[in-house]
Amino acid sequence: MDSKLLKGLLEKVRNGEATVGDTLKRLRDLPYENLDFARVDHHRAHRTRIPEVVFAANKKVSEVAAIAHSMHRTSGRFLITRATEEMHAAIGIQGAEFFPDACIIACGMPKRFAGSVLVMTAGTSDIPVAEEASLTLQFLGSKTERLYDAGVAGLHRVLDQKERFSAARVFIVVAGMEGALPSVVGGMTDKPVIAVPTSVGYGTSFGGLTALFAMLNSCVPGLAVVNIDNGFGAGCLAHRINTKR
Amino acid sequence: MDSKLLKGLLEKVRNGEATVGDTLKRLRDLPYENLDFARVDHHRAHRTRIPEVVFAANKKVSEVAAIAHSMHRTSGRFLITRATEEMHAAIGIQGAEFFPDACIIACGMPKRFAGSVLVMTAGTSDIPVAEEASLTLQFLGSKTERLYDAGVAGLHRVLDQKERFSAARVFIVVAGMEGALPSVVGGMTDKPVIAVPTSVGYGTSFGGLTALFAMLNSCVPGLAVVNIDNGFGAGCLAHRINTKR
Amino acid sequence: MDSKLLKGLLEKVRNGEATVGDTLKRLRDLPYENLDFARVDHHRAHRTRIPEVVFAANKKVSEVAAIAHSMHRTSGRFLITRATEEMHAAIGIQGAEFFPDACIIACGMPKRFAGSVLVMTAGTSDIPVAEEASLTLQFLGSKTERLYDAGVAGLHRVLDQKERFSAARVFIVVAGMEGALPSVVGGMTDKPVIAVPTSVGYGTSFGGLTALFAMLNSCVPGLAVVNIDNGFGAGCLAHRINTKR
Amino acid sequence: MDSKLLKGLLEKVRNGEATVGDTLKRLRDLPYENLDFARVDHHRAHRTRIPEVVFAANKKVSEVAAIAHSMHRTSGRFLITRATEEMHAAIGIQGAEFFPDACIIACGMPKRFAGSVLVMTAGTSDIPVAEEASLTLQFLGSKTERLYDAGVAGLHRVLDQKERFSAARVFIVVAGMEGALPSVVGGMTDKPVIAVPTSVGYGTSFGGLTALFAMLNSCVPGLAVVNIDNGFGAGCLAHRINTKR
Amino acid sequence: MDSKLLKGLLEKVRNGEATVGDTLKRLRDLPYENLDFARVDHHRAHRTRIPEVVFAANKKVSEVAAIAHSMHRTSGRFLITRATEEMHAAIGIQGAEFFPDACIIACGMPKRFAGSVLVMTAGTSDIPVAEEASLTLQFLGSKTERLYDAGVAGLHRVLDQKERFSAARVFIVVAGMEGALPSVVGGMTDKPVIAVPTSVGYGTSFGGLTALFAMLNSCVPGLAVVNIDNGFGAGCLAHRINTKR
Amino acid sequence: MDSKLLKGLLEKVRNGEATVGDTLKRLRDLPYENLDFARVDHHRAHRTRIPEVVFAANKKVSEVAAIAHSMHRTSGRFLITRATEEMHAAIGIQGAEFFPDACIIACGMPKRFAGSVLVMTAGTSDIPVAEEASLTLQFLGSKTERLYDAGVAGLHRVLDQKERFSAARVFIVVAGMEGALPSVVGGMTDKPVIAVPTSVGYGTSFGGLTALFAMLNSCVPGLAVVNIDNGFGAGCLAHRINTKR
Amino acid sequence: MDSKLLKGLLEKVRNGEATVGDTLKRLRDLPYENLDFARVDHHRAHRTRIPEVVFAANKKVSEVAAIAHSMHRTSGRFLITRATEEMHAAIGIQGAEFFPDACIIACGMPKRFAGSVLVMTAGTSDIPVAEEASLTLQFLGSKTERLYDAGVAGLHRVLDQKERFSAARVFIVVAGMEGALPSVVGGMTDKPVIAVPTSVGYGTSFGGLTALFAMLNSCVPGLAVVNIDNGFGAGCLAHRINTKR
Amino acid sequence: MDSKLLKGLLEKVRNGEATVGDTLKRLRDLPYENLDFARVDHHRAHRTRIPEVVFAANKKVSEVAAIAHSMHRTSGRFLITRATEEMHAAIGIQGAEFFPDACIIACGMPKRFAGSVLVMTAGTSDIPVAEEASLTLQFLGSKTERLYDAGVAGLHRVLDQKERFSAARVFIVVAGMEGALPSVVGGMTDKPVIAVPTSVGYGTSFGGLTALFAMLNSCVPGLAVVNIDNGFGAGCLAHRINTKR
Repeated sequence: MDSKLLKGLLEKVRNGEATVGDTLKRLRDLPYENLDFARVDHHRAHRTRIPEVVFAANKKVSEVAAIAHSMHRTSGRFLITRATEEMHAAIGIQGAEFFPDACIIACGMPKRFAGSVLVMTAGTSDIPVAEEASLTLQFLGSKTERLYDAGVAGLHRVLDQKERFSAARVFIVVAGMEGALPSVVGGMTDKPVIAVPTSVGYGTSFGGLTALFAMLNSCVPGLAVVNIDNGFGAGCLAHRINTKR
Repeated sequence: MDSKLLKGLLEKVRNGEATVGDTLKRLRDLPYENLDFARVDHHRAHRTRIPEVVFAANKKVSEVAAIAHSMHRTSGRFLITRATEEMHAAIGIQGAEFFPDACIIACGMPKRFAGSVLVMTAGTSDIPVAEEASLTLQFLGSKTERLYDAGVAGLHRVLDQKERFSAARVFIVVAGMEGALPSVVGGMTDKPVIAVPTSVGYGTSFGGLTALFAMLNSCVPGLAVVNIDNGFGAGCLAHRINTKR
Repeated sequence: MDSKLLKGLLEKVRNGEATVGDTLKRLRDLPYENLDFARVDHHRAHRTRIPEVVFAANKKVSEVAAIAHSMHRTSGRFLITRATEEMHAAIGIQGAEFFPDACIIACGMPKRFAGSVLVMTAGTSDIPVAEEASLTLQFLGSKTERLYDAGVAGLHRVLDQKERFSAARVFIVVAGMEGALPSVVGGMTDKPVIAVPTSVGYGTSFGGLTALFAMLNSCVPGLAVVNIDNGFGAGCLAHRINTKR
Repeated sequence: MDSKLLKGLLEKVRNGEATVGDTLKRLRDLPYENLDFARVDHHRAHRTRIPEVVFAANKKVSEVAAIAHSMHRTSGRFLITRATEEMHAAIGIQGAEFFPDACIIACGMPKRFAGSVLVMTAGTSDIPVAEEASLTLQFLGSKTERLYDAGVAGLHRVLDQKERFSAARVFIVVAGMEGALPSVVGGMTDKPVIAVPTSVGYGTSFGGLTALFAMLNSCVPGLAVVNIDNGFGAGCLAHRINTKR
Repeated sequence: MDSKLLKGLLEKVRNGEATVGDTLKRLRDLPYENLDFARVDHHRAHRTRIPEVVFAANKKVSEVAAIAHSMHRTSGRFLITRATEEMHAAIGIQGAEFFPDACIIACGMPKRFAGSVLVMTAGTSDIPVAEEASLTLQFLGSKTERLYDAGVAGLHRVLDQKERFSAARVFIVVAGMEGALPSVVGGMTDKPVIAVPTSVGYGTSFGGLTALFAMLNSCVPGLAVVNIDNGFGAGCLAHRINTKR
Repeated sequence: MDSKLLKGLLEKVRNGEATVGDTLKRLRDLPYENLDFARVDHHRAHRTRIPEVVFAANKKVSEVAAIAHSMHRTSGRFLITRATEEMHAAIGIQGAEFFPDACIIACGMPKRFAGSVLVMTAGTSDIPVAEEASLTLQFLGSKTERLYDAGVAGLHRVLDQKERFSAARVFIVVAGMEGALPSVVGGMTDKPVIAVPTSVGYGTSFGGLTALFAMLNSCVPGLAVVNIDNGFGAGCLAHRINTKR
Repeated sequence: MDSKLLKGLLEKVRNGEATVGDTLKRLRDLPYENLDFARVDHHRAHRTRIPEVVFAANKKVSEVAAIAHSMHRTSGRFLITRATEEMHAAIGIQGAEFFPDACIIACGMPKRFAGSVLVMTAGTSDIPVAEEASLTLQFLGSKTERLYDAGVAGLHRVLDQKERFSAARVFIVVAGMEGALPSVVGGMTDKPVIAVPTSVGYGTSFGGLTALFAMLNSCVPGLAVVNIDNGFGAGCLAHRINTKR
Repeated sequence: MDSKLLKGLLEKVRNGEATVGDTLKRLRDLPYENLDFARVDHHRAHRTRIPEVVFAANKKVSEVAAIAHSMHRTSGRFLITRATEEMHAAIGIQGAEFFPDACIIACGMPKRFAGSVLVMTAGTSDIPVAEEASLTLQFLGSKTERLYDAGVAGLHRVLDQKERFSAARVFIVVAGMEGALPSVVGGMTDKPVIAVPTSVGYGTSFGGLTALFAMLNSCVPGLAVVNIDNGFGAGCLAHRINTKR
């Protein structure tokens, strides 16, 4: 709702130019009347504690650069996922760093981090998705620990991590192929476990669907599952949980 | 590992009957040697803070009754999901209560509850799944609030719940058909939101798949998604988050 | 928003008990504050011109009867889809009529109807879905014409209906199996055509999916498609178009 | 049917060279006899009020140019969808304009427009499909209003558009990912709403299938759904409704 | 087209009451004018050489009986597929025979048969579908030979049938599970081979889809494939080929 | 089976060197003993009347050229489907012709043709598949008639072809998108109709699956269906039927 | 091939009634000539070492009983899978035992067993499939060990089975839901591991498809996978491996 | 578990510095404590007899080269699947050979081979997958025989291989399209048969899914099935069976 309009309405009531009854009727429709576009965006970021993030896939280099500059002017910081080296060069803002493994460009990383999220992968091919999650967490202000290439084919690599498990407040477990690692981890901890299926695999991996469905069917109750390759979403969820008041 | 066996090994070292080297070699294999079955189960429950729960679908009435009695002897309490009135009668334990909406039999509900989880549904047909989540939460010790039949076709029913939203620490949002409610709720709060698709609908609802995929594709980043109709899993996850230390 | 609360706020402004600034701040949050539940429902029906309709599938006979009585008290009329003879008997309201082909119970049909919607089917097995659409239209106040069993295997049955085609303002074309009839009809008229796939068929008809996808891929541009067997939805859409101001 | 043949038959009846009975028998087969190909096409365009439009995807540049010139000669105007800049250059007809967002080449846009269709998108990535719909509408003679990037994650952007909603006679709502926006809009208006799923998204968006199925399952009754990314079809349907006599 | 109307038009030309030009214009629209419904049906049967057949699945016993009596009165014969013993009893027409394996009721089987169609099955569970095809063929007037239970797990059962293969003019090969038999048969003959997938199997047989897709992908070029369990369709196709003039 | 070996066995029986009993036992295993590879191939071509045809997709240019030369040496003729201009150049055999629409290279086309097969398409994009079928038929020795771009959106284009319909002995009907044309044609003739789905379309055309399933579900009984885009298979089947003895 | 016919041919050669050349020509066709049906079956059983087994699902009680009696007369033993108590009663052969968990009727179990196959399950609901495998193995003559309810949610139950693992020559691992157990077992042994997916689960378990695809995508190379719920197939495969010469 | 830590614990017990009870408690947690990463990998290779193999798809040339050098230093040998000529050049290790058909780089092939595995293909397009299996077997130390292009369209090519069939201890049967060959082979032998579906085909071959499902549904009980195009997995499984102790 436009503040000026609303202010005008109230002033009319105060000045007796409008009756309470008429204004009452008018205000009942307020949810549908005009609001300033930019302010709404600010509200949303405030409400959800996830600032706007640029999803660069399918966007032109020039578009991404323009958005980055706009965000930099407003807030001094930005996060771009599914980005390329070329986009980083085109942006040309000092302090904007490109992370090739995660395909992320970040600017204005915080200095202090809360709690700790343990980010695990089953294989080395799952690392880009895990890095997307890790850097998202860092950008949002959560501390992350990495434990990569700990698949179920060699269980010792998981079983001997008891101390790191105790230290973590939330888990993100990234796995492609049969997607079994979240079940194993979920059976070993009482912390929230976020399972991230990846498109790693071929044939009946169906671009990650098999891992996704396996995770949704885990014999361990209560895994949180996100979309395929959605490291960013997992990071947002883990941050919400990690910093829950 | 069997405690007696381990104790014997150590006593032999102490008594000089076995060398450190030989015992070292023996112990390296420990992860693969015998453990007492019951104790393991106890460990798991302890580790994950989710006690064993009976999934009654496809089990015979007599089987469910036997398991319930066994759990009652051990711990004085139990939770049975996808249960029937007939199973409740067969169990015949005082204090075991049947909740027909949730198809749950619960015995030994706690007296005190932590935090607060807001359980919402889009329609009235989603209520059984929501009730399964709510009663699971109560059994585990989390406080629940219910807000049912608040679908996106009439947005006011969601938009005017600001205060209840502020009070909640975790959200469970249950929806079938197009599964849009979690997106709307997720855009209004900064708390973790668990989306539960239900099999409500027909035609291209595909028994809940459309709602599931819609939730995984939400434009709101960071929704936690569970399997179709999996109120129990949502309850476990919400409890893990709500009581996270 | 609660009217009393809002009235109080405005009276305070008028009386000078609250400043414009403070009230302005307070009102900005209005969209999220409390509204009377029943009133909202009334609003929605008013906004969309589709009164609430009961979808009886998966509901108990007693539940359906209770809802019907509640709606009858409020508005003197109601429409129940996917209903049974047994539900009709349980309701027991004079004037409530059961239509076995459409599985509809209707009470308070209007006396006057606007425009004309031509409802066609490809085969006789598609008639129940067509009847659901036709009776929905009548309940909402649209006039309907029926043209059943006019499938593409015998094109004459379609080709010779030129006059009835001219008289119609909207078409609803119901077809299962290969779902080809809407393409044929759409190529013969310039009126809006609503295609309704049905679950008639076996094998690769996939419960109506093949007809649905065929209709979405029609070589005739601009067919409106609804969910499988969704005669009610087609009726609502046709009514919106037929009575569009 | 060949006019000359028919004329000959009638002249024979008039001249008494053929009996009424024999000619009657002969004419009964008329529906299957020869018609002039070009005239038929003209008939179809006349019947459906949608002139022939070129779908350029998978066509060669030279083919598209040849068709465009042929249509230009006949009618002085044409519309080409899924076109490229290169095709536009190859056509080289003055007055033919290329719209890069919509991938449309249009020539001979009308000067006057009827009614008003409100074209909305949930995100910025949905704009190309919306532009295809908007330009199709304009080419056919319907007035369009655009309201882009109004997704459900920030509901204010929809809720405050009451006046523009009132002015519209038909809605086209374009959305990818979870496809929830048409449900929200459909719950706020009594005008026909056409839902267009887009292939925007990844993982379980399945190239637009999830949005499509969500729209077909909307809890708001009576949405008209078209094929994925089918802005052209949505435009044709909206025009049929908007200009319905 | 209504004969009376047409006759009137012609008489007016003869009598000079109408000019050739005006009548010419009128007749051009003939394809869209009225025809007698029953006659059209008769035409279709004549054109396609497949008389109307009753598909009894999902029809009530009384409906099937009524249709059978109607057809019996008109033509003295009828064929009902997917029928039951109960339907046969309800019909009660002398000469109507029930074939339980094929679930067919036939009345008025012809006395003389043309050519020969060899109907094969891979297993014994495929026999009902093969019998539906065989009896359809007999009803239409084609001679059939049966060769059942000749699956690829024991190739000798196929390889030693050279003489029967030579005698056949068309093959119908019915198979479920992996659907391999049509490929083997197709590689041994130069006659048209119709492959009929059945829903026999479990797990990844997907109710016959695997057999269907295997048949469509046969390394033997030129198999004709029909819908799952569609013995009736295979019979019609084989008859069209067998009696092709 | 090796002829020399067999001859030796028989000579031993004639000469009394082996008993009838022993040779009987030996011969029973014959089906599993050695045959000359090349001869077998010759047998197959003889048995099925479809000579070996090269499927060039995924083969290297050099491989295709080598196979073509080998076949040319043996039989003086060859057919290559899914071929390219580049392959044609690499082959360099006089008399080998490249047909760009069909992507076919043919050498040694027959001079005389049997019967007549009518090859139809619904749209212009379906023509490449139809041409593959037509040229395959010509190579095999069947006469073909072409009737292209006769989709159901303009039914006159089909309805007025009665004479050409009468002349044809077999129909091949090629259609993408909703795949409705074979149903229309099948309802107008008593000749065998082969339906060929194409991958023309987008969104829910699923690369031709929708057209395929629509054809398998045709309300006209007895359509013969082949794999998506399989013009070659349709040609082989039509030839088998057309030249059936 | 019919023995009498073959004997006749040979005798004619011996007697000089037929030349070697003519008989040579005749014999070349032998693979396609007539064989005694029963003998062929005997051959197959001999060749594959898996005697014929009755799959009772979808067979009538009387049919199963008849087949059982026939097999009992021939060989004194039989195995019936997917059987019921009622079938067992109808058979009434002494020595035929019904195993309710496995739904198997077995008669003529061998006394001595070779090697050892370890049959494992992830959960208790997987036991019926495991029992089908175990009893099949015993019927075929392989020794089996059972290790049930050892799912990945409690890894100790697997990790401590080192000795039993060493003793086994082949593994059958049965699991539903996410199907992770075969990966864990496959990473701990160098013996062949057969993975059997079961239909245990709901929602996105898709009746066992998720477990099947997970097993096919195992990060442990070389798992052997069979159809969903196919305990019988797993038993046959394990027996082939266990008794491989 | 770190050996030094464990040794220290035991020495403390021997020296009386720690009680048996305390150490007992400490050791109970051993499965979760630290192990040397490299040693674990060594253990796994030892346990499963399948050394680590590099899956080069989606890896950079430089990464593959680095891994190859690392493995060469450790063991003097390595196997890389889905490799390219360019990777081979980048590795530059003497003795590393590139096999273009199999897309494999192998170094350190053994000199002696055990048993014999018969690797068959249905068509020539299946050969790359068969070669991947064959070279994997050779690298692991199993002897292989190749029998390529023996599809079911010309059964003689399979039927006459009796002697080679007898010599094989395990079969790998590779087939795309309808995937029928493993059924035919499985019906002719009592050895373990591993079926490998390939992505060869188009339309409803679905990239190998149809062949996969056909193999899982074989009427021959006990086929071992692996993932689509998974020659490597088939080789590992065949080696496990071939060299089973």
